[in-house]
Amino acid sequence: MPIGLTGSGTRTETDSIGEIEVPADHYWGAQTQRSLIHFDIGDDRMPKEVYHAYGYIKKAAAIVNGAAGRLPRWKADLIARVADEVIRGDLDAEFPLYVWQTGSGTQSNMNVNEVISNRAIQLVGGELGSKHPVHPNDHVNMGQSSNDTFVTAMHIAAVQMIETRLLAASGRLRDAAETKSREWENVVKIGRTHLEDATPLTVGQEWSGYAAQLADAIDHLSGTLPGLYRLAIGGTAVGTGLNAPPGFGDEVAARIADLTGRPFVSAANKFAAQASCDALVRASAAVRALAVPLFKFANDMRWLGSGPRTGLHELILPANEPGSSIMPGKVNPTQAEAMLMVAVQVMGNDTAVSLAGAEGNFELNAFRPIIIDNVLHSVRILSDMIDHFRTYLVEGVRLDTAKLKDNIDRSIMMVTALSPVVGYDKAARIAHRALDEDLTLRDAALRSGVSEHLYDQIVIAERLTRPGVAGQDSGHEPPKKG
Amino acid sequence: MPIGLTGSGTRTETDSIGEIEVPADHYWGAQTQRSLIHFDIGDDRMPKEVYHAYGYIKKAAAIVNGAAGRLPRWKADLIARVADEVIRGDLDAEFPLYVWQTGSGTQSNMNVNEVISNRAIQLVGGELGSKHPVHPNDHVNMGQSSNDTFVTAMHIAAVQMIETRLLAASGRLRDAAETKSREWENVVKIGRTHLEDATPLTVGQEWSGYAAQLADAIDHLSGTLPGLYRLAIGGTAVGTGLNAPPGFGDEVAARIADLTGRPFVSAANKFAAQASCDALVRASAAVRALAVPLFKFANDMRWLGSGPRTGLHELILPANEPGSSIMPGKVNPTQAEAMLMVAVQVMGNDTAVSLAGAEGNFELNAFRPIIIDNVLHSVRILSDMIDHFRTYLVEGVRLDTAKLKDNIDRSIMMVTALSPVVGYDKAARIAHRALDEDLTLRDAALRSGVSEHLYDQIVIAERLTRPGVAGQDSGHEPPKKG
Amino acid sequence: MPIGLTGSGTRTETDSIGEIEVPADHYWGAQTQRSLIHFDIGDDRMPKEVYHAYGYIKKAAAIVNGAAGRLPRWKADLIARVADEVIRGDLDAEFPLYVWQTGSGTQSNMNVNEVISNRAIQLVGGELGSKHPVHPNDHVNMGQSSNDTFVTAMHIAAVQMIETRLLAASGRLRDAAETKSREWENVVKIGRTHLEDATPLTVGQEWSGYAAQLADAIDHLSGTLPGLYRLAIGGTAVGTGLNAPPGFGDEVAARIADLTGRPFVSAANKFAAQASCDALVRASAAVRALAVPLFKFANDMRWLGSGPRTGLHELILPANEPGSSIMPGKVNPTQAEAMLMVAVQVMGNDTAVSLAGAEGNFELNAFRPIIIDNVLHSVRILSDMIDHFRTYLVEGVRLDTAKLKDNIDRSIMMVTALSPVVGYDKAARIAHRALDEDLTLRDAALRSGVSEHLYDQIVIAERLTRPGVAGQDSGHEPPKKG
Amino acid sequence: MPIGLTGSGTRTETDSIGEIEVPADHYWGAQTQRSLIHFDIGDDRMPKEVYHAYGYIKKAAAIVNGAAGRLPRWKADLIARVADEVIRGDLDAEFPLYVWQTGSGTQSNMNVNEVISNRAIQLVGGELGSKHPVHPNDHVNMGQSSNDTFVTAMHIAAVQMIETRLLAASGRLRDAAETKSREWENVVKIGRTHLEDATPLTVGQEWSGYAAQLADAIDHLSGTLPGLYRLAIGGTAVGTGLNAPPGFGDEVAARIADLTGRPFVSAANKFAAQASCDALVRASAAVRALAVPLFKFANDMRWLGSGPRTGLHELILPANEPGSSIMPGKVNPTQAEAMLMVAVQVMGNDTAVSLAGAEGNFELNAFRPIIIDNVLHSVRILSDMIDHFRTYLVEGVRLDTAKLKDNIDRSIMMVTALSPVVGYDKAARIAHRALDEDLTLRDAALRSGVSEHLYDQIVIAERLTRPGVAGQDSGHEPPKKG
Repeated sequence: MPIGLTGSGTRTETDSIGEIEVPADHYWGAQTQRSLIHFDIGDDRMPKEVYHAYGYIKKAAAIVNGAAGRLPRWKADLIARVADEVIRGDLDAEFPLYVWQTGSGTQSNMNVNEVISNRAIQLVGGELGSKHPVHPNDHVNMGQSSNDTFVTAMHIAAVQMIETRLLAASGRLRDAAETKSREWENVVKIGRTHLEDATPLTVGQEWSGYAAQLADAIDHLSGTLPGLYRLAIGGTAVGTGLNAPPGFGDEVAARIADLTGRPFVSAANKFAAQASCDALVRASAAVRALAVPLFKFANDMRWLGSGPRTGLHELILPANEPGSSIMPGKVNPTQAEAMLMVAVQVMGNDTAVSLAGAEGNFELNAFRPIIIDNVLHSVRILSDMIDHFRTYLVEGVRLDTAKLKDNIDRSIMMVTALSPVVGYDKAARIAHRALDEDLTLRDAALRSGVSEHLYDQIVIAERLTRPGVAGQDSGHEPPKKG
Repeated sequence: MPIGLTGSGTRTETDSIGEIEVPADHYWGAQTQRSLIHFDIGDDRMPKEVYHAYGYIKKAAAIVNGAAGRLPRWKADLIARVADEVIRGDLDAEFPLYVWQTGSGTQSNMNVNEVISNRAIQLVGGELGSKHPVHPNDHVNMGQSSNDTFVTAMHIAAVQMIETRLLAASGRLRDAAETKSREWENVVKIGRTHLEDATPLTVGQEWSGYAAQLADAIDHLSGTLPGLYRLAIGGTAVGTGLNAPPGFGDEVAARIADLTGRPFVSAANKFAAQASCDALVRASAAVRALAVPLFKFANDMRWLGSGPRTGLHELILPANEPGSSIMPGKVNPTQAEAMLMVAVQVMGNDTAVSLAGAEGNFELNAFRPIIIDNVLHSVRILSDMIDHFRTYLVEGVRLDTAKLKDNIDRSIMMVTALSPVVGYDKAARIAHRALDEDLTLRDAALRSGVSEHLYDQIVIAERLTRPGVAGQDSGHEPPKKG
Repeated sequence: MPIGLTGSGTRTETDSIGEIEVPADHYWGAQTQRSLIHFDIGDDRMPKEVYHAYGYIKKAAAIVNGAAGRLPRWKADLIARVADEVIRGDLDAEFPLYVWQTGSGTQSNMNVNEVISNRAIQLVGGELGSKHPVHPNDHVNMGQSSNDTFVTAMHIAAVQMIETRLLAASGRLRDAAETKSREWENVVKIGRTHLEDATPLTVGQEWSGYAAQLADAIDHLSGTLPGLYRLAIGGTAVGTGLNAPPGFGDEVAARIADLTGRPFVSAANKFAAQASCDALVRASAAVRALAVPLFKFANDMRWLGSGPRTGLHELILPANEPGSSIMPGKVNPTQAEAMLMVAVQVMGNDTAVSLAGAEGNFELNAFRPIIIDNVLHSVRILSDMIDHFRTYLVEGVRLDTAKLKDNIDRSIMMVTALSPVVGYDKAARIAHRALDEDLTLRDAALRSGVSEHLYDQIVIAERLTRPGVAGQDSGHEPPKKG
Repeated sequence: MPIGLTGSGTRTETDSIGEIEVPADHYWGAQTQRSLIHFDIGDDRMPKEVYHAYGYIKKAAAIVNGAAGRLPRWKADLIARVADEVIRGDLDAEFPLYVWQTGSGTQSNMNVNEVISNRAIQLVGGELGSKHPVHPNDHVNMGQSSNDTFVTAMHIAAVQMIETRLLAASGRLRDAAETKSREWENVVKIGRTHLEDATPLTVGQEWSGYAAQLADAIDHLSGTLPGLYRLAIGGTAVGTGLNAPPGFGDEVAARIADLTGRPFVSAANKFAAQASCDALVRASAAVRALAVPLFKFANDMRWLGSGPRTGLHELILPANEPGSSIMPGKVNPTQAEAMLMVAVQVMGNDTAVSLAGAEGNFELNAFRPIIIDNVLHSVRILSDMIDHFRTYLVEGVRLDTAKLKDNIDRSIMMVTALSPVVGYDKAARIAHRALDEDLTLRDAALRSGVSEHLYDQIVIAERLTRPGVAGQDSGHEPPKKG
């Protein structure tokens, strides 16, 4: 039995508003068609992941309803079979609705109900649009409401995208940064604070910071998953569970957990689960909190790679593409720029999510489509971006070792190491002298009365990057004064 | 000569990085192909409107270069001919690049250059990828850089979308609101401040506010267009105009103005024009400033239509679709909800635009793709939404006149009209008495010593809505005291 | 020995820039004075909590330095003694600096160093400004940098404010909502989704949702504390710990933990800890994620309390103040409005925090002052607001039981309970009939052929709120069809 | 007659809620006192500028009411006299209320009414709290409501702050940038796009961009003032003007215009004027649109000043303060950092304003206090910051001319000038050769077959910065090809 319809023209479908013509080569019914007409706004379509998640819900509910005898087993099996097609994406073309629709997501739920109904009817040789023997509301939606299932689908889709896409990609980037950190753990470079020359550290230390920031962001994002594991299913219209049998939410959630291999459970408080999207607001913020260190990482990359002749140019970035339509030979930090833009988009999306999250009223948050669209948008572009940033930038970065060394040789800020010995005030005078008279730090120190022996014992760039290791010598002991 | 290529497999294209295989059935070249590989991030593609705008630029530049003899006339004509195909959208499928690419938009500019080059080569029977006789950089991009043309294309695209879509739709909604305002200019209703009962006004007065808010927002948005009319064209790489002949920017801008019928000019200061996207930041904020009153308009609609039995229900909203998968007969304010979500999305997009707008460095703002994508996204969804909101909600709204009258009869806040006569303090006691003893305002006033004659002379709901008109009688004159 | 100085006029202080006159009646020195001149911008002062936190740092460092012999014990004790004055707030007037200063917070660190130095000098009878015997850099700042201590102070201040203020207040409000939930657990009310009439629930169920949302938000916010417990102390200038002895960070953090009674530790990766403010970005987002359900809670309160005659008016809000200068007797939901505004401010502040958090470069995030100012601002106003909202609104709310009952009697949406028995389509027809013919649901159902017995068995509002409890009867069994 | 009260203890004041004790040494009354109790939330007080603006309103209304005979002339004069004290700030201490209060600002309006009432009573020897002979509602508030006056005061305060502070400071900075632009109009420097070396321009050209960006932002901000000139005054409670005589709004607005010297008028549509804060939303966005180029300006400054040995260091920034507590001799770009933070705060504030602006309902936007507080906060800190940035950074910046020249000598991107002559592809090969073989551009060009004569005729840095001026020679004419 093939998926798809070969009809042309239209057929008549009905709902409580009345009759309406729908394309004959599609499974959807009257409510989907009305939504297509009333909401063809822009190009933003409800993400496919939401429908795949709905596949799990409809399948799980059918199984539970079938097992309890509320649905004949054969109907339950039939719904489950079509739900599998939904899960696999085979019916993606049947879910055309826009993001900008009813705030509850009802139209997308009905889209699923209608498609499963008609596809099931087709499979048993019935008449499309007849709602027999599988009715979109009475059977596919049995024991359910959009108010509990749509936010359930949002949670499932978000969990799957965050786990399989974003956390996975982030972990790979963290590992790549750690690899670089180990590779360059002993390469000394000038540190910079306020963009100004500061005391040295190793390139590996700098990169360990990127890795550590990512690791923390990953942990935090992972910590928002338990909130998403709690599903509204079972609350039906307003959270009371009207028209769902006792235990329905628990059973369906357990079945969803089985089908997805993830620890979904029925939310303890359905009123909160349906009246809010708080768990998604928190997850969105955690995605943003991952974009924040990525912004810094990418920003550092492009600055450290700037040049090639008049910038910082400690890093040599991969030359992936010609950089200019007018300036021949120009190479730009394009992956870093794309990452910066993606991070900004994630911030903008998160602003929308938090506003929308606050706007629930009474028993429903009716800003659900914008929330899930923005969350999944952020997860999608950030995941892809991270992988590209890693592949086309991080893994191909090389060091300009000559530049790194030259910077160390020319820097003045290693005067800091003298400060505990000669005091902050004298050390400051040495630094200013070096600048004013265009001297090396060593020359300025010696001319200021620091002994050659003392200087060369203390101002050793490599050692200054590991003071905690090399710090046993007296040079690091502050003098006794007063 | 048909548009399109029928080849299968790939052909070899080259750029300064080297050779690369591109699909034989597409016109794009090496740099487009590299971008497709390095930046296949999410689903966000550079909006087609940007390419259509680029069509104008390439055509105008070719005409100017041809007229000046820098390009042989036949090459100029050839480029202009293909540019017309770009403008018409015939080559849309040749512009596949993602939003998340180089921050200058160079890859999209090169995409245009490559497609025009190869399409022109095809038209004269040359070899695709040979860059002869029309070279993507030397000829199609002659006198131009991505740095001046991309932001020029952004301005052109934004102007066209704002004028033809958003301002037009907003004007229609303003007119519709004004029509309703006139229709209901004498229907009295209870006013509400802080959501609490207040003094009366007419439904028409309330709607005149919606219309006036829209009119002001339209004016403000229109006021940002002059900034967008100023084009960076002529500045080339860093604003100095290197490799463009004197006057090139002025001539090309004038030609673009002719072609588009809009008053585009060359920006007076190219350094500002290329280093920033300030004019778009301002336009984005003006789009948001239009979304703000629309949020209020939609919010009022859904609250005033709430019910049907236990809400405010002064308005009867059109029943466009069944509202619930579980609650039969339910009708929801779906257009209002969609508008609220679109308005929130516009706010989120604008946050991204303003951040991106601030992040320019030196001679370039390298956050251009995110800026134009968000601006056009906002314009597109808001334009469509406004038209749907008007068609499927505003124009179909009816009044629940029984409810409106009942509210007036039951309200207490018309006590305000007594205040100038009996003083604020006594009026407050009357109001509290009505509430505490569950009286009508009239009963409470009379029991508190107000004469029947005085009450009936002053507390006339209709008249209270036009105090400035009907205010000649003594009831509206504050008493002389002191 | 009194705190404070009685001098008038000025005294001369010095730093590496040179001499400068400072007010004789203040302890601060040259760098504080320069900051006061260069940064008297607006009215925003660095929050006092940051300085109190610095008191702990300076005390802990002095103890550790003293114990190790790097500082003579008497100097360490002297510094610790003055640090106690800082902790207690006795020296608050000595910390006048603005938020808008150097991005590292160096000026505030030096303010602390200078004040402790001069106050210590005063205590031992020395000459103010002499830096002897307690030097602001060499002794008070020994083993420290602004780059590690300022962000350490930010963490300490944030932890203390979040724990003692915000989490405490939030817990009290959650408890108050739970109390109301139990009090009203059996009071039936109409549910509302999309603002439209829906199936019933109890007032207690609705309030259980508020409590559950708060409980989740509290958990999430608590979950960001461990990130804040990790302190940068020990990293000094760029994270390497230059000029701090081995183990210094661990020892000082342990001492801070002792002094504050909170589990502070030294951060494992100092490069991340100083180059970012990620932990604060996450905490800020969690504060926002608490503001989101509070926005909804407050919004519901004002809508449910709207009226008194023409609104929803299920709740009777406390009349705390006269509501209008012109409308006598008006009472408004002022606590709810203030909460809505505070929630919006928290969102705006969080936007600033996330942008600032992304803007670190290399070894330092130089947007620290704006981050801590906004985080503490949000925590402060939200904590206070929550307590006021609870005290002056939540705890005084009463039910308008007549209105609640009337709504139930008039509602149509209990038709939903008939749906599993008669099917969705017929149930929808009943609902529409009730509306069209202005009937009660019961009348419409009976006229549509539903038996009186069936209706009265199923449509019992109280029971519909606990279907999971009362759901054993056959009315909840879907019919076998097909 | 002195301003101020010398009483101690409390006196009893009354309002419609009942009696309450207020401090005897203050003029405020019962409603102010209730607000102080119910809303002591955080430290944010309603800005003083709002009260000064209220002074104008109360004075103007008294004059108009007095002239019309609605108020005895002596009462009108008395109110006007006290209003002058309010305008001058003499009574600032009498306006203690918090930002987080009723959303209409009623409590601040009543604070003004009460203070003027009691101060007037004191001036004529009456009994404080007696409301005789000047009643806060009946006389000071005559013909007014908070709903029209508070938003009127917001407009007046915003206009005055924007004009006298922000536009003035911005104009000074624009002028300072223009001065620098002229001073350095012929100093050649390397351009940078994507942070990467690009073709040259002059320092003056770069600075002309800063000036032009500011000029445009100033124009745009000025363009939002006409919206703010339109005042809600005359609309009273819900926009109908109930209890205000015909023409009252026009007359009072005209009087306010006289008193302030600014072209205030009565808004044409009062329903829009009171139900929204749209004009302030637009003004806030324009303030943000000024912060955007300031962010870029400050960011460029700190990067161009970075070093002194290992950064870009084209600019030598003034050394205003020691930069580090641990690194002696360090100088940081502190003014730039503060500007960046202020710009971010303005963005965060604007987010709050736009959300709040969208949240009006029916006849009132009840998010007014947060809107005016954030607008004035942004204006205040940005104005001050701009002046400090100009004084302590821009005016003191010097050029590192050696570095500028060295960069030009070492750069490769002047190869662009060869491109029209030798073609883009060959020019790209020359550039890559220079990099790969570590050659100067000249050496790479000559080794690639470019003649010495051609090279030296074309690649002249100074000339490349003014191609439009110097472009008459053939070197700037693209070759005829094809």
